[in-house]
Amino acid sequence: MTDEELHGHLIDQQGSRRELNTPVLVIDLDALTRNIASMAAFARGRGVQLRPHAKTHKSPEIAKRQIAAGAIGICCAKLGEAEVMADHGVTTGLHITSPVVSPPAIRRLIGLNERTQDLMCVADSVENVQALGAAATGKPLGVIIDLDPGIHRTGVTSAEAAISLVRAVQAEPGLQYKGIQCYCGAQQHIADFEERRTAMDGRAEFISSVVAALIKADAAPQIVTGGGTGTHRIDVDLGLFTELQVGSYVFMDSQYLACDLAGDGSPAPFETALMVDARVVSANTPGMVTLDAGIKAFSTDAAAPAVIAGAVDGARYAFMGDEHGALILGGGQTMDLGQVVTLAAPHCDPTVNLHDTYHVVQGDTLRALWPVAARGRSR
Amino acid sequence: MTDEELHGHLIDQQGSRRELNTPVLVIDLDALTRNIASMAAFARGRGVQLRPHAKTHKSPEIAKRQIAAGAIGICCAKLGEAEVMADHGVTTGLHITSPVVSPPAIRRLIGLNERTQDLMCVADSVENVQALGAAATGKPLGVIIDLDPGIHRTGVTSAEAAISLVRAVQAEPGLQYKGIQCYCGAQQHIADFEERRTAMDGRAEFISSVVAALIKADAAPQIVTGGGTGTHRIDVDLGLFTELQVGSYVFMDSQYLACDLAGDGSPAPFETALMVDARVVSANTPGMVTLDAGIKAFSTDAAAPAVIAGAVDGARYAFMGDEHGALILGGGQTMDLGQVVTLAAPHCDPTVNLHDTYHVVQGDTLRALWPVAARGRSR
Repeated sequence: MTDEELHGHLIDQQGSRRELNTPVLVIDLDALTRNIASMAAFARGRGVQLRPHAKTHKSPEIAKRQIAAGAIGICCAKLGEAEVMADHGVTTGLHITSPVVSPPAIRRLIGLNERTQDLMCVADSVENVQALGAAATGKPLGVIIDLDPGIHRTGVTSAEAAISLVRAVQAEPGLQYKGIQCYCGAQQHIADFEERRTAMDGRAEFISSVVAALIKADAAPQIVTGGGTGTHRIDVDLGLFTELQVGSYVFMDSQYLACDLAGDGSPAPFETALMVDARVVSANTPGMVTLDAGIKAFSTDAAAPAVIAGAVDGARYAFMGDEHGALILGGGQTMDLGQVVTLAAPHCDPTVNLHDTYHVVQGDTLRALWPVAARGRSR
Repeated sequence: MTDEELHGHLIDQQGSRRELNTPVLVIDLDALTRNIASMAAFARGRGVQLRPHAKTHKSPEIAKRQIAAGAIGICCAKLGEAEVMADHGVTTGLHITSPVVSPPAIRRLIGLNERTQDLMCVADSVENVQALGAAATGKPLGVIIDLDPGIHRTGVTSAEAAISLVRAVQAEPGLQYKGIQCYCGAQQHIADFEERRTAMDGRAEFISSVVAALIKADAAPQIVTGGGTGTHRIDVDLGLFTELQVGSYVFMDSQYLACDLAGDGSPAPFETALMVDARVVSANTPGMVTLDAGIKAFSTDAAAPAVIAGAVDGARYAFMGDEHGALILGGGQTMDLGQVVTLAAPHCDPTVNLHDTYHVVQGDTLRALWPVAARGRSR
C-alpha cells in the first residue's frame, strides 16, 4: 500500500510545508538525524548498547534509521507495536517492555517469535512465565525479568522474586532467560541534574543488589536494560545497564527540554525535532486568535504546547476544546486568517499517537510522508 | 477493504468479548440503539430536526443508524471527518461546524461539495467567505453564519457582523446563505439543571436578537443550528433552534452522566454505551493491580475513567503513564492476572479518537467490528 493509497485526499502534498493542510505533525529531518547520530555516538563512546524505544515514534522508518546508526534492536511498549515493526521489516532484536498477559496476545507473541530473530519480552510473575512457556513452540522466546523501580507499575520488588522468576523461565524449554529490565520512569523528568542523580542512586543500589544476587545464584544477566533520555548520562556513569532503551531523544519534547541533561547547565545535546503546525481559523477577538489544533492534535497530560514560530513574541497557547486552541497575543494584537503557527509537542509519545502521518521537512520543503505505522497499537 | 484486511492480526475475533485482546474500545449495541431511538423520539415529539454530531463517534456506521432513525444529516467538526463520511456513503446533509480556512482545505471542500448533496459549512469572517466564493464552482455551497456563544473560539459577536456576513455570502454566486449556528459548549456540562437553564437564558437572548435583526434585514435564517446533549431539553424549551447538533448522547460519557439532563433529578434518558475493557497485567503490590490501559487508551482532559465492572466495589482507576493504569483496590486486596475490568470513557470524543476499531457487543457476544473511520481526521 502506497502512502497515497493510505492517506489519499487527506494530504495535499505540494512540496512546501506552508501549503500543508493543518493541524499537521511535522518532523525536522536534519534535527532528527542529528539526534539519532548524537545518541549513537554517546553510546558508542561509552561502550553501552542502544535499543531505542519505539513507543515514542511508532515509526519503522525512524527505527531503521536508529538501527543504521548502530542500535542493536528496538524496544516496543506493546505487542501490537512490535508486530507493526516486523511487518515493515524491523525483524531483529525486538524487545517488548511491558508484560504480555492476555491469552490472545500470548498466541500472537509466539507467532511473532516465529517470524523474527532474537525477540524478547518481559515477565514479572511466575504465572505469566508458565503461560508463555505453555504457548511457546520450538523456537525459544527470550525473557527479561522486569524489576519494579519503586512505582509499583510492573516488575518484581526483590532479588528473591527475580531469582524465582529466572528459575521459572529456566524450567520452560520454550523460553530463554536473557537478563533484567529496570525502567526508572519517575526519575526521567527531574529538571535538576544533581537531584536526578541523587534520585537514581537509590535505584542503582537496588538494581546492583539484584544483579549481585543473580550472579551468586549462577544466573548472571546477559542483558541489563533500562534508562531513558532524562537519565542516560547518569545511568552510564553509574554503570547500571548493558543497554539503554532511550526513546524521547529523537524528538525532544518540552518536558525533556526543561531538563539539564548534560549536568552542566549547557544546552540539551538533542534538539526539538517534532512539531505541530496549526493555522489561525478565527480572529474576531482582539488580543487572541483561534488555531485549528486542540485536544485531538496535542496530548493533554503535560503542559500546554509551546509556541515555536509564526506568532508574536510572548504568544501563549491554551486548549479550547477537542478541535481548537486559543493563541493569546495580548495587547489587542491579532493575526491574519490562515497564518501558520508552529508549536512544540508537550509530551511527544501521546501526541504522536494522535496523528496518522509524519510530514518530514527540511526547512520549508516537504521531503517525505512517513506513516505513524504503529499508531493506536496499544495491545 | 474488509475489516479483516484493515485490522488483520491485531484483532482476535473469537465471538466472545472476554476473548478480545485489551485494551479494547467496546460499544454496547443495545444501549447505543436505545440512545439513538430516544433522542430521535425526543426530537420528533418536540418538532425539532436532528443533525447529530459525528465528532463524537467518527463512524459512518453510527451516522447511518442516526439517519435511519430520522436525522436529516450529520454534523462534522472538520472537513476530513466529512470526507470520510462521504467516502462511506453518508453523502446527504453534511454540515462542517468549524471554519474551513486553509487554502488546500478550501480546495478539498469544493471537491466534497461536488460529490455530496446539501453540504454546508460555517463562516465567521468576510475574508473566509470571499475565499470560499472564489473557490466555488457551479454547484452552490451552503454557508451557515457562526455566532460566538461568548467563549471567543469561533463566531461573530454581534447582529451587525452577522448581517455583514450574510451580505458577503449573498454576493458570491457560488455560495448559498442557509442560516446561523450557535454552539454553547461552555453550558453543556453544568451539572445542575436550573443553573444550566439560567446560563442558557443569556445565550438565548443573544441568539434571538440576532435572529430578529436578520429577519428585519430580510435575511431570515432558514436553519438555526446548535444545542448539545447537556442542554438539548432547555434548548427546545427555549425554542432556539430549528435543529440540534447533539453528539455525546449516543455514548453518554462520565461527564454527561453527572448532569441532571431531564431537570427533575431522574436518571439520564441515555445510557453508557461506550466502554474500554482492560486487563490486569501485573499484580505484585498488595492493594493494587496494574491494567494495560493508560494515556494511549483514555483521554486525559477530564476525570479518570470510572470502573464499571470486573473489580471489587470501590476500586478506583489512576493513570500510570502512556500504557498502564493502576487499579487501587485498597485493604491489601488483589486480583488475578488476566482479569478483565470494564471502564467508562471519561470524555468520549477524544477517547474514541485514540482507537481504530469499535468492538460492538451484545452481552458477552462480539457482534461486529466497526472502524473508527474518521479517527485522526482533524483537518
